[in-house]
Formats: sequence, C-alpha cells, structure tokens
Amino acid sequence: MEYRDFSELAAVTRLRQLARAPFDLTLPGALDARRVEDYRLSSCGFDCLYATQRVDDAVLDGLQDLADEAGVVDKFLAAKEGAVVNRIEGVESENRQVLHTAVRDIFTDSPCHGEASARARQQLDRLRGFLDDLDRGLVVNEKGEAFTTMVQIGIGGSDLGPRALYLALKKYERQGRSARFLANVDPDDAAAVLADLDLSRTLFNVVSKSGTTLETLTNEQLVRDALAGAGLDPGRHLVSVTGAGSPMDNPDNYLASFHMFDYIGGRYSVTSMVGAVTLGFTLGYDAFVDILNGAHEMDRAAEQRNIRRNIPLLMAMLGIWNRNFLGCDTVAVLPYSRALARFPAHLQQCDMESNGKSVSRSGQPVTWATGPVVWGEPGTNGQHAFYQLLHQGTTVVPVEFIGFRQSQFGRDAVVQGTTSQEKLVANMLAQVLALARGRRDGNPNRNFAGNRPGLVLLGERLTPRTMGALLALYESKIIFQGFCWNINSFDQEGVQLGKNLAIRLLNAIEAQGSRAPAGQDSDPAEHALLEACGFLKKAG
Amino acid sequence: MEYRDFSELAAVTRLRQLARAPFDLTLPGALDARRVEDYRLSSCGFDCLYATQRVDDAVLDGLQDLADEAGVVDKFLAAKEGAVVNRIEGVESENRQVLHTAVRDIFTDSPCHGEASARARQQLDRLRGFLDDLDRGLVVNEKGEAFTTMVQIGIGGSDLGPRALYLALKKYERQGRSARFLANVDPDDAAAVLADLDLSRTLFNVVSKSGTTLETLTNEQLVRDALAGAGLDPGRHLVSVTGAGSPMDNPDNYLASFHMFDYIGGRYSVTSMVGAVTLGFTLGYDAFVDILNGAHEMDRAAEQRNIRRNIPLLMAMLGIWNRNFLGCDTVAVLPYSRALARFPAHLQQCDMESNGKSVSRSGQPVTWATGPVVWGEPGTNGQHAFYQLLHQGTTVVPVEFIGFRQSQFGRDAVVQGTTSQEKLVANMLAQVLALARGRRDGNPNRNFAGNRPGLVLLGERLTPRTMGALLALYESKIIFQGFCWNINSFDQEGVQLGKNLAIRLLNAIEAQGSRAPAGQDSDPAEHALLEACGFLKKAG
Repeated sequence: MEYRDFSELAAVTRLRQLARAPFDLTLPGALDARRVEDYRLSSCGFDCLYATQRVDDAVLDGLQDLADEAGVVDKFLAAKEGAVVNRIEGVESENRQVLHTAVRDIFTDSPCHGEASARARQQLDRLRGFLDDLDRGLVVNEKGEAFTTMVQIGIGGSDLGPRALYLALKKYERQGRSARFLANVDPDDAAAVLADLDLSRTLFNVVSKSGTTLETLTNEQLVRDALAGAGLDPGRHLVSVTGAGSPMDNPDNYLASFHMFDYIGGRYSVTSMVGAVTLGFTLGYDAFVDILNGAHEMDRAAEQRNIRRNIPLLMAMLGIWNRNFLGCDTVAVLPYSRALARFPAHLQQCDMESNGKSVSRSGQPVTWATGPVVWGEPGTNGQHAFYQLLHQGTTVVPVEFIGFRQSQFGRDAVVQGTTSQEKLVANMLAQVLALARGRRDGNPNRNFAGNRPGLVLLGERLTPRTMGALLALYESKIIFQGFCWNINSFDQEGVQLGKNLAIRLLNAIEAQGSRAPAGQDSDPAEHALLEACGFLKKAG
Repeated sequence: MEYRDFSELAAVTRLRQLARAPFDLTLPGALDARRVEDYRLSSCGFDCLYATQRVDDAVLDGLQDLADEAGVVDKFLAAKEGAVVNRIEGVESENRQVLHTAVRDIFTDSPCHGEASARARQQLDRLRGFLDDLDRGLVVNEKGEAFTTMVQIGIGGSDLGPRALYLALKKYERQGRSARFLANVDPDDAAAVLADLDLSRTLFNVVSKSGTTLETLTNEQLVRDALAGAGLDPGRHLVSVTGAGSPMDNPDNYLASFHMFDYIGGRYSVTSMVGAVTLGFTLGYDAFVDILNGAHEMDRAAEQRNIRRNIPLLMAMLGIWNRNFLGCDTVAVLPYSRALARFPAHLQQCDMESNGKSVSRSGQPVTWATGPVVWGEPGTNGQHAFYQLLHQGTTVVPVEFIGFRQSQFGRDAVVQGTTSQEKLVANMLAQVLALARGRRDGNPNRNFAGNRPGLVLLGERLTPRTMGALLALYESKIIFQGFCWNINSFDQEGVQLGKNLAIRLLNAIEAQGSRAPAGQDSDPAEHALLEACGFLKKAG
C-alpha cells in the first residue's frame, strides 16, 4: 500500500487556492432550493444535507481528488480484508490488523475477512447461549431469582460506546432489565453506583482487553468486597469480557468470559463483545443483531469511492475542508435527540484518540493539522447554552447536526399548533440555516456574520438498526480522515506518559506508607505537588 | 466607568513581545519544587497550582498590568454595587444591572447592594416557609402523603447549573427526597422522565424568567396532561420560579411561585431561586445556605486586585494569556471527581454564552479573540478517551484540572498499595506534569512535545460550601475576562436569529396543517429543508 503525506498531494495545493474565496453562503440566493436538493445524499436510512457547507462543485471535485489521491477507500478496503494498517514504518509500533468491521460482517457467506468474522460468530453464539440460560432460569442468583441489572465495569472504549448506545436505545429495554456503568477510579463512582442497587440481583460485567486496567481492577475489587460483605458469592455475579488468556479469562472467577481480540481497538469495539454483553442483556439478543446489521450496511456503503454517494467519506472530506483549508480547530456534534446525549462523548474518544496525532505513518512530524477537538451536547438544550458563541463568537465552529423525523416513544402533544417533534426538528433546521446565512442588522450587536458551516444528518427514527448505522458512519469517517492525513488512527501512544508518571507518583505514596525510602529517581516537583495534596510529608 | 479596547492597552503590546518566547516547561530544571511553591495560591478552601502554565514573573507582572489597565476588579466592584454593566454604548441593549452576587451577600449587615440582597432574603424566607410546610405535612398530595421527587422543568440557565450542582451534591441528599430534570423539547425527554415516576408523589418546579420559554411551556403542558390523565390535580403538583408579573406568576395555577429578577441572567442564576427550590427540596434549606456562604466568600476574595492573591482573577488572566497570546481556541475543564460530571456543561454555557461575542462595549467589531470553546469530561475517564489529542495532537488545549484530597462518600479500599482517592489525585497530578514537561523519545511516535499548559484547582472535599465557592470562582473568572476583552458578558443576542427562524418554520408547518396559504415571506431553501424532513409536501 502506498502512503503519501498530506502536504504532497496535488489536490491539497488546488484546495488551498480554492480556500482563498470559499463559497459565500450569505449572498442573496446563494442557498436556494436547488442547492439543498443537489447537496443531499441518502444512504442506509440517513439523509446528509450539506448545502450549508462552504463548498461548491469545484471544491467537492477537489475533495474527491484528494480522497482518490490519498487512496482512503482502498486503504479502508484493505483494512477490512486484514491488512496491517495499525502500524508506523521504521519504528516499533503495534503492527496489528484493524478488523472491527468483521464483527458485523456476519450476514453473508463471503465476509471480507472470514477468520475474524467466524471468531465473532463464535462469541455471539456463546453470548446467545448465556442469554438463553438467563431467560430459562439456568443462570440465577443464590436464591434462584433472575438477574435484573447488569453493571458494566470498564473505562474508555470499554465504557463510552456501550454507555452511549445503551442510553440511546433504553426505550427498547426489556421489561425488568436495566444497566448501569462504573468507570472512574474515583471511589465515589463505585459508592454512588452501589448505593441504590439490589446486589443480589445484579450481574457485574468486567471489561478489559488486557485484564490489567488499573481503574477496572480497582472497581472490580470494590465490587467483590461489596458482594462478599452482603453475604453473596462474587463468582455467581461476575462475567468478564477480555482477551483470551488474560488474567481475567478465568472460569474460576467468572460465570462466563467472552473474548475480544487485539485487532479491535477499544474505541472501535462497541459492536464486539465489549458492547454485546450489556446491550444483549438489556435489549435482547435480536436487538443487538439489529445494531450489527445497521453497522454492516453502513460499512458496505462506505466502500463507495464517489464522495457524493458515501456519507462517511463525504463527511470526512468536508471535515478536512473545514479543518485544513478553513482553519477550524474544533467540530461540534449536536444531536437533536435526548437519547443521543452521550454519543458526542463516545465520538470525542473515537475521533480524538484516533486522530489526535502528530507523527505520520513514516514516523515524521506532520506539518499539517490533524484531528480537531470534538465536543457537543443535545439540542435544543445547547441553544440556550453555548450557541451564542457558535453564532457570534470570534472562533468559527463547524457543526454536525443529527436528528430524526420521528420520536422514539411516540408520546407527543400539539402545543401552539405543532408537536414537540416538529419543534425539535424545526429548531435544528433553523440553526443550520442561521449559522450559514447570518443576517445584517443596523445594530452591530444583532449582526450575524454567517458563513459558519454546518450539515444535517437526518434519520427516520432512532432504533437499534439506525444506531448501528450511525455508529459505523462515524467510525469510518474518522478512519477516512486518518488515512487522508497519513497518520495511524489505531494506536494511542499519547496516553502512556501520563499513565507511567501516575505509577511513579503512586509508588512514591506507597513507599512513604511503608516507610521505605523513596525511589532514587524521585523528582522535586513531583514531590512538591504530592505535598500540596497532603499525600507526602514535607521533605525534611 | 472608562471602557478601553483590549488592543489599546499598553500591557497587550508588552505581553505580545513576551509571547514570542514563552516560558519553556520542558527545559531541565524549569519545573522545580520552588516553582511549584511560588506559583501556588490558596483561597476559600482551594489551592490553585499554576507552575505548569507557560508564564514567568515578567508575564505575571504583565497580566497584572493588563488587569489593572482594563480595570477589571473595579468594574466587578461597580457591578456588585449596582452599576448598569449589561449594556452596549450607542445602540439598543438590555441596559441592566448584574447582581447575581447580591443573592449570596446576605451574611453581613452591610451588603454591597442592599435592595437586591433584601429581595433575595425575602425569597429565601418564602422558600424556607414552603420547605417547612412540606416537612410539617402542611403541603402534601391528594392522599395526604409527602412529596418525594421534584422535577425541575427549565432549559439553559434554568437547567444546567441546578442540574450540575444537584449531581455534585447528591451525596448529601435528604433521605426520601430526590430530583429529576426535564429540559429538551424532544418529546422523548418528557416521556423518559415521566416513564418511571410516581406522579402522585412528585412536585414539578417550572422555571422560566419570562414565563414564555417555548420548551418549558411545552413540557409543562405535557406534564399537566400526564397529571390530569392520572386523575391528579395539576394545581397541587406544580410550583414556579419566574419573574414577578409573568404569565407563570399565577397563584391559580401553582402551589407557590418564587421570583427571579431581571438583573440576574440565566447563566448566573444558580444561587437564586432558579437553583434554590430544587436544591433546597433535596438537600435541605441549610445546605443551600451553605452553598450561598461558599459563593459569598469567593465573591469577597474576588475583590482582591493582586492577581497572585485572587484565584478567579488569576485564572482569568492565565486564560487570556493562553487565548490571546499563545493562540489557543479552546480550554478543557477536567474534574477528577465523578460528582462534577456535569459541571463542565454548566461552564460551557456560563462561559461561551457570556464571552462568545464579537462586538465591543462601544458597538465596534472586535479585532481580538474573545471567549474560547469550553469543554470537558471527568478524569480519569477522559484519560482513556481524548487525552491522546491533549498530549500528541497538533492543537494545543490548555487544561484546568479540578480535584479534591478526600472523596465524598469516604468508602474506599486499598488496591495495589494505594486507595482509589490517591490513585485519582495522583493521576491528575501526573497528567498536568506530563502535559507540561513532555518527554523526548527516540521513537517519534512516543515523543511528547510538552509545553501544554495546565493548572490544578485542589480542594479538601466537595461539599455544599466548596461547591458554592467553585461556582462563584468560575462566574467571576468569566466576568473578569469579559471586562478585559471589553465585551458585554451579560447579553445573548446571538441566540435570537435561530429562535426567530424556528418560529418561521413552525408557522409554515402549522399553516400547511390548517390548509392556510404559506406566509408570503416563505423561503425556497427553508421549504426544501422542511420537505426533506417530510414536514412539508413538495411545492407545486
């Protein structure tokens, strides 16, 4: 596979020229019905409305050339087929395949990567068996009662995605089942989660690929202590999701252990067992398969090379236009759906951990901007919060709106002539238009400069299937951008330094507790900070 | 009061020169124990540790001069005493006082603004009476039972702050009392909140200054319908917080109405009745007064002119250094406390709605950067999510860490030699150090450039009182920055355009429903977008 630096692509030069006078959305007639129709793409149950981006056909052609030159779709296809794309040339790196798409490539006889899909099926079958045993009363608590609650203990990729999807799909929860999540090493997290649980009817699902994540092990220990303290047998209340052969892959300690594989990074693992166990427990096995189905459909649609026919690719390239050519440091993801309240937090991880990089695939410092800061909260709430800055701040923030024509519950009322769902969606459209067009006003404080780019992703209704599609859409968008920037979107070396330093500080605290001498490499500034916290006494 | 443009201040020129070679935190010995001690400030129960900012004494002196030249503390004092600082010269503007500090200036005989503080006391006394009536069984439901749940219905400033504080202080909740929040016009928000409530024992607290907020009225109507549908009397289940004389200030429709005043903007209203009713119901009246006490103490400390002795002023000026001189577009607020999970969302509103402005106090377009994008999630969770970009991304993000020496619950366990609370705080310190110092590595992918500025706010324990102090700290920080940038931090004209446009779109939907002709000012692009949503039929 040929990797080329972003700065060396011919399309970049041309796009730089075009960016000197980007499409002006504020001109009279610039944004008309024709443009809305032309700049609209439908795929996998979603419409992507992008007339309110600062692009014209020349820019879209340039972005197409950029995608082609960088070979982003080819690389995505190669990854699907098992190429080792988690890699940096010439230096020590993870050297792994990237096969999260394989766990949902289970609906045909000829998956892209047969072996990984077969393994995924195997785990799914095991999960189905376990869920059946719960339904049939073969797995029950000490008193023979059914389990009602599952607490997922995990952090980062083992938490954010499953949590976001659970909240998004809670409407479809099975009667008498629910989930909680425990992530933070903050002891108050465990205390608050455990405070109002019926431990006797709770299963704990401990998720860690390595089986050594500090936060997760600590919380598992707190939970085991709490179970034992309540006279319950921890072995009857815990399951694990972990790598085969990890310390957590141990039938003596868990009711069941499901496996995750090293070719699926945490932030891309929602559709693996990392999300499957808790989502399957709460929503049912079939609903989880619906998620996989929606994701798989989007994975197939993402193979299309034409950016005007491929939503993830289009959004990737529009994002690069805003980031590298219009100079925007952040992107806001604003779902007009309370169910998607935590989806931006999942994307924050998936995007920023993937593309917050400054070294190219050949190990050179990059000279172009890579991943932006991703943030967001649901609308209409945000309209009454931070939208002031979106409309009139000195920093331009591109916006991705997500909405649905129908609500989940279907419980609505007409107030002042329209339903709440109509109000919700009308507000979303009004925002994207207002940001784009702005408005001249004689009062400078009521003037809106406009030309703030936005787009709308519109689906029919948020269901397991559309949720799967939306998840896969963003995963592929992020991966396409990483290929275009010629960075490795699949490692996370940037988290190591802080982790190692925390261990040093904890060793220093522990050494003082045991009255052992501090390590010889103790650092005065570290010591002074620990003193400020009262964790170390003043050096005497 | 003399207002001067940021660009005209002499200190700005000097700071620009200093910013050409900002303090290099990565040099050996640059960050030593002495620096940690020198760049540490203790006030109102918090330590601010800022050795890991890219400043030296010359920069701090420059920032002091900048604060002095802009007269930010004088203007803050003038506001406290009732000056009309919500104003833009020469054009129509709100022309109001800014007196959120008065509602907590109730602990001395000589408050800064006697009249506003007297009114605040009056409302507090009414609230105490109402809460006493609940305790004594004088206000009960149809069956004579006590109310157990309060649902606050409000959006923006009537939601985010009270919600953040409720979550932060839930540990201190009274037995048998709890709260929920309903904000979004999304009908699924109401459906989900109502789904698992015992309506008969629930009070709804409807909060809107104008009494006309669309989302809030819509949700109130859904709630009234649900109560009536359950055979309950809505008049016995609703209270309101609103401006005197608003449509919601009506004893026929509410059990009680508490008043808010036009000199307190929504985003600064947490310590007014906007937060008082729900926080008082759940935590008790005395705990709410503790919040006021902590806030008042910080308000007093914020009067200090020396930036090295005034935490909000110091943080304001360090923020300006990072924003205007080092060129950072965003700031991350990362609490190492699960209880503060929603505090960044509150700050996002308070900061971005206040300072996301591009017109000066004299009505001229600003030529300098104003408010940054504020975002954040709790640590250690974020370490496993977006910290990759903080450490190795191409965009530098200044970070404000918030932590506490002790947990709230005090339920902890020693795992691998240290407690969870020690792990939590050690991780926070490790992060701020790692971001600042970086680390050279032969593997370019494991190299950390460092010089990423951070600071730590460290308190003893998160209690009502320290929560009040923390809230007031950030309110004043934001206001100081606004004065320095010479913008009006107290209006929000930027939210009007989208709001008006939404009304237009809803009118178009309503007109079609009634088969009346569409308004003559109907716009083709608006129409096309509504068609895409299926809300309007194709024209023609």
